[in-house]
Amino acid sequence: MSPISNREIHLASRPVGMPTAANFELVETHLPDPAPGQMLVRNRYMSVDPYMRGRMVDRKSYVPPFQIGEVLTGGAVGQVVRSNRGPLAEGTYVLSMNGWREYFLSDGDGLTPVDPGLAPLSSYLGVMGMPGLTAYVGLLDIAKPKAGDAVFVSGAAGAVGSVVCQIAKLKGCQVIGSAGSDAKVDWLLNRAGVDAAFNYKAMPVSAGLARFARGGIDVYFDNVGGDHLEAALSALNNFGRVAVCGMISQYNAIAPTPAPRNLALVIGKRLTLQGFIVSDHYDRLGDFHRDMSQWIAGGQVKWEETVYEGIENAPAAFLGLFSGENLGKMVVKC
Amino acid sequence: MSPISNREIHLASRPVGMPTAANFELVETHLPDPAPGQMLVRNRYMSVDPYMRGRMVDRKSYVPPFQIGEVLTGGAVGQVVRSNRGPLAEGTYVLSMNGWREYFLSDGDGLTPVDPGLAPLSSYLGVMGMPGLTAYVGLLDIAKPKAGDAVFVSGAAGAVGSVVCQIAKLKGCQVIGSAGSDAKVDWLLNRAGVDAAFNYKAMPVSAGLARFARGGIDVYFDNVGGDHLEAALSALNNFGRVAVCGMISQYNAIAPTPAPRNLALVIGKRLTLQGFIVSDHYDRLGDFHRDMSQWIAGGQVKWEETVYEGIENAPAAFLGLFSGENLGKMVVKC
Repeated sequence: MSPISNREIHLASRPVGMPTAANFELVETHLPDPAPGQMLVRNRYMSVDPYMRGRMVDRKSYVPPFQIGEVLTGGAVGQVVRSNRGPLAEGTYVLSMNGWREYFLSDGDGLTPVDPGLAPLSSYLGVMGMPGLTAYVGLLDIAKPKAGDAVFVSGAAGAVGSVVCQIAKLKGCQVIGSAGSDAKVDWLLNRAGVDAAFNYKAMPVSAGLARFARGGIDVYFDNVGGDHLEAALSALNNFGRVAVCGMISQYNAIAPTPAPRNLALVIGKRLTLQGFIVSDHYDRLGDFHRDMSQWIAGGQVKWEETVYEGIENAPAAFLGLFSGENLGKMVVKC
Repeated sequence: MSPISNREIHLASRPVGMPTAANFELVETHLPDPAPGQMLVRNRYMSVDPYMRGRMVDRKSYVPPFQIGEVLTGGAVGQVVRSNRGPLAEGTYVLSMNGWREYFLSDGDGLTPVDPGLAPLSSYLGVMGMPGLTAYVGLLDIAKPKAGDAVFVSGAAGAVGSVVCQIAKLKGCQVIGSAGSDAKVDWLLNRAGVDAAFNYKAMPVSAGLARFARGGIDVYFDNVGGDHLEAALSALNNFGRVAVCGMISQYNAIAPTPAPRNLALVIGKRLTLQGFIVSDHYDRLGDFHRDMSQWIAGGQVKWEETVYEGIENAPAAFLGLFSGENLGKMVVKC
């Protein structure tokens, strides 16, 4: 058979501040036929996630930086479309870290079969995947709320935050969410079932918490940092906990950012701030899959996806994360 | 017998920024003879501590604010000099929170007898008292270092820091201390036995850590905040812990203070910052007394005191805390 025509997205240059389309390049390649033992995988959905911004910087971190001129990587769900005696049958759907491309060849390393009968394919990049597990361990294992606790979630309508809100409700907490549009606030109130939600672009976070968390908060699940974290520190009750999952407000800063200005409150209030990354917690994957599939089947956890069509629009989808274009998980249909 | 002539220090006005002598007033009073069931206590030593600065502000906190025109309070060790059938015999030495005065009357509530044969009287305000317990629980229960960990201590020659350094050494840690004078650095190296120490007024904290903690740090015991915390966050290794005990650099700030600018590091490094106050940990008092009296008897923990003479000099002693006049515990001999 003829070589396979493939399109993929390369890192053209390292962003300084807010990334732009010029930092990305759409590249056409041709893949050879699968060698013996290899499979050809056609991606169906790929993930864009805020953490990828960190990998675009050339610095030591918990994952190595992306390299200029090379294809980006990230979560993707694809299908084995050709197998030359490879380990998985043609037709099998697989989760991989080989996103940002339409096709790839694999000997099976790093591929996890997924069942499209159990949950929609794209959900393995969201509620059933890495963002869902992030929400699960960040809330249950890091923040450890008790029933009755007031839990504040920023980025509450995003891929992680929307799941945090709903798990917190299932655990008997009072949930207050912040999001960046009235439509997201509506979704939180009417679909996710939070107790209160506010649009942080329409009122300062401190005002939102003063209004909707009159008894203070016991847990803050931070996806945003900056003003959100500062306001949360002020609103936290004694012995409060902060699960620090992300600080999307800081990722494009070109100088060190000075918030929060009230960090000394951690002493008198005996607060704990704990950063975490999901890859340390894959031992909880079995528990997560068991609980989440039950919650989804029971209608107790709902989710949204914002879908961009075509690999050529993957950079735009990624950029959209930083302007809040997504309700729920942002994915690209390849 | 005639009324007892007493001198005490009142809060004259609330400090704005750095406190001054004008915020305090020396007041002469006369106490009546002890009523039946009462004792007259003559203070011998009283404590001045950085936390008292917080109580001079009129705000809700973990202890109520001092009131203008009223006598200040704080730790003190005194002696029962007269008893009118009170619960303790004349001559008994007692620890109380009735500092900032020469004499007081008591029915015994809030008095703890102390044994001057076990440790010097003034040490019950320092290494054997609240600052010692603060060091003990902050290091062992909050920061939880393992043998071999690199532990960075700020305010390392102070009442709390000097004890933290020595307990950390006893637990097999590598200890790096920062202090505000060369004399304090000498004491840390030659008496407290730390592995490295530097004068933060002679080099930036970040430079001190780069030079003396080449492998990074695993624990930061924070007494200072500000630049110290920012530099420590940058130097912390993955899964590092910060025990947030105090932020003396911030206590006199007249506007919110913007450091640290690198708090987002808590995510990728999976750091934990935990604030604590000693009064939550009095269940550890027995363990602390047992361990500390053994360490002192064995010469494994050394301590210093800086003694101001006379109740009239208590305000100067307190002010001296913020310019680092003290090596070890600052006390006032009444």
